[in-house]
Amino acid sequence: MSEPNLPDCQIYRPEIRFVDIDAAGIVNNAVYLNYFEQSRIHFFEGIVGKKWNWNEAGMVVARHEIDYQLPILFNDDVRIITWIDHVGEKSIKAAYVVQKQMEGKWLRTAKANTILVSYDHINGKTIPWPDKMVAGLHGFGIGCPECL
Amino acid sequence: MSEPNLPDCQIYRPEIRFVDIDAAGIVNNAVYLNYFEQSRIHFFEGIVGKKWNWNEAGMVVARHEIDYQLPILFNDDVRIITWIDHVGEKSIKAAYVVQKQMEGKWLRTAKANTILVSYDHINGKTIPWPDKMVAGLHGFGIGCPECL
Amino acid sequence: MSEPNLPDCQIYRPEIRFVDIDAAGIVNNAVYLNYFEQSRIHFFEGIVGKKWNWNEAGMVVARHEIDYQLPILFNDDVRIITWIDHVGEKSIKAAYVVQKQMEGKWLRTAKANTILVSYDHINGKTIPWPDKMVAGLHGFGIGCPECL
Amino acid sequence: MSEPNLPDCQIYRPEIRFVDIDAAGIVNNAVYLNYFEQSRIHFFEGIVGKKWNWNEAGMVVARHEIDYQLPILFNDDVRIITWIDHVGEKSIKAAYVVQKQMEGKWLRTAKANTILVSYDHINGKTIPWPDKMVAGLHGFGIGCPECL
Repeated sequence: MSEPNLPDCQIYRPEIRFVDIDAAGIVNNAVYLNYFEQSRIHFFEGIVGKKWNWNEAGMVVARHEIDYQLPILFNDDVRIITWIDHVGEKSIKAAYVVQKQMEGKWLRTAKANTILVSYDHINGKTIPWPDKMVAGLHGFGIGCPECL
Repeated sequence: MSEPNLPDCQIYRPEIRFVDIDAAGIVNNAVYLNYFEQSRIHFFEGIVGKKWNWNEAGMVVARHEIDYQLPILFNDDVRIITWIDHVGEKSIKAAYVVQKQMEGKWLRTAKANTILVSYDHINGKTIPWPDKMVAGLHGFGIGCPECL
Repeated sequence: MSEPNLPDCQIYRPEIRFVDIDAAGIVNNAVYLNYFEQSRIHFFEGIVGKKWNWNEAGMVVARHEIDYQLPILFNDDVRIITWIDHVGEKSIKAAYVVQKQMEGKWLRTAKANTILVSYDHINGKTIPWPDKMVAGLHGFGIGCPECL
Repeated sequence: MSEPNLPDCQIYRPEIRFVDIDAAGIVNNAVYLNYFEQSRIHFFEGIVGKKWNWNEAGMVVARHEIDYQLPILFNDDVRIITWIDHVGEKSIKAAYVVQKQMEGKWLRTAKANTILVSYDHINGKTIPWPDKMVAGLHGFGIGCPECL
């Protein structure tokens, strides 16, 4: 099935590992946060490149909200669409929709968002976002993709 | 240091496994959801006992909100206090405070809450909470412990 | 860099998740067993197809041996090559080589093997391998690929 | 049931987390390596104390062998007994037996061993074991406990 008309960095397709499935037979609720972590890495590499120094100009997770709507099973074909909802001086709100294919359609299985805080891991303190990050995010575009 | 004056089932002390620590040197944000899962199991066993049939009268996670306030390190002494904020016909809101010991005090490192939906895994559908669960929760008491 | 001249089911390329990295900055030794699990799933799907009933004619892990030779880092490009070393009446020995790219070469980072026992999960007992599995494995070929 | 007559540092009782259970309803084979990691930490803290500098005088895993004999289920009461089988100039062989309680007896569910190599993480090289480690291990005693 065709991908939505979105830049590559906004679409992450997690591999559903056997070990991601818990005793209830579905992807464990905690594993979604690992998928979102990978989605963010993929997204931000698209914005600032693979050479960014995340130690010097990194970010920490300050808050998550996750709504689980449909379970994900082992053989499901899943994609996560990521975007930025807001850029503040020291924080960013990232948002995600998780979809899986069922009978030729992509159904939403979860939605979530994360507050990220700009963080200098070397000096151990919050810092304003670097100009390149802010310019990159605004250049890319803020807000939910229209296709969702 | 002394425990707060709370029933045993409200206090869960996670073992911080070496593997819970990520490359940033702190407990990974996803692992908190595993700790909360264990906290809930510990809490609900205190309410309905160890013989409850969770397959027949279980629950599924519908939503999490987590605020991360201080990082947890490998050797930290951590406890999670769990309570129920609301009991609806088919849903429950559980809430948690995560604390760690620093210089003789318990500091809050995170707070979170989870919406749980009553679920019959055998027939694959939501069901009203069994009377024993509702009575058990009301008997135990609803709301944030005063000590927090 | 070019792939070795091997059937697709023998090559598995794990995604290195951020959370796979431990506090020492390398893929944790336990995570290799998850990668091998995915390698086996990928391999056996190539032998008996995606419709196989693993519940009825499954397998359980009886033994692992793993030699760790070089660490795997977050951005490493990794592949795992899987083969079958021996097919017994009720057991199979699978083997793996883990490689990563360094300066245009694939270097071996680990080697391992697993004893798998044929298991009927419905009746909870070991069973002889189904004919289709044995024929499939012999048709595919037993032993270490020559290129290794 | 009574503990074996062994020093505390040789006995580790893993908490079986819900998320340790995989879709087959048992503790996933990879999770044993996390349990062994915790067992080793517990053991070596008993030998060299909690203040040891593991960064300067640490160890890396070079090899594991694991034999799985009985599955571990969610509510099982499990203990792991650890000992040192051999101390070489730069390597140590640690060994473990995993047991679970069934009908008032401790049954062996797995046995395993690990080759550990003495490693200076600051300078990134193998080093001879510090005298304090070697003396501590010999003082403690080498070899499988008689009770096993």
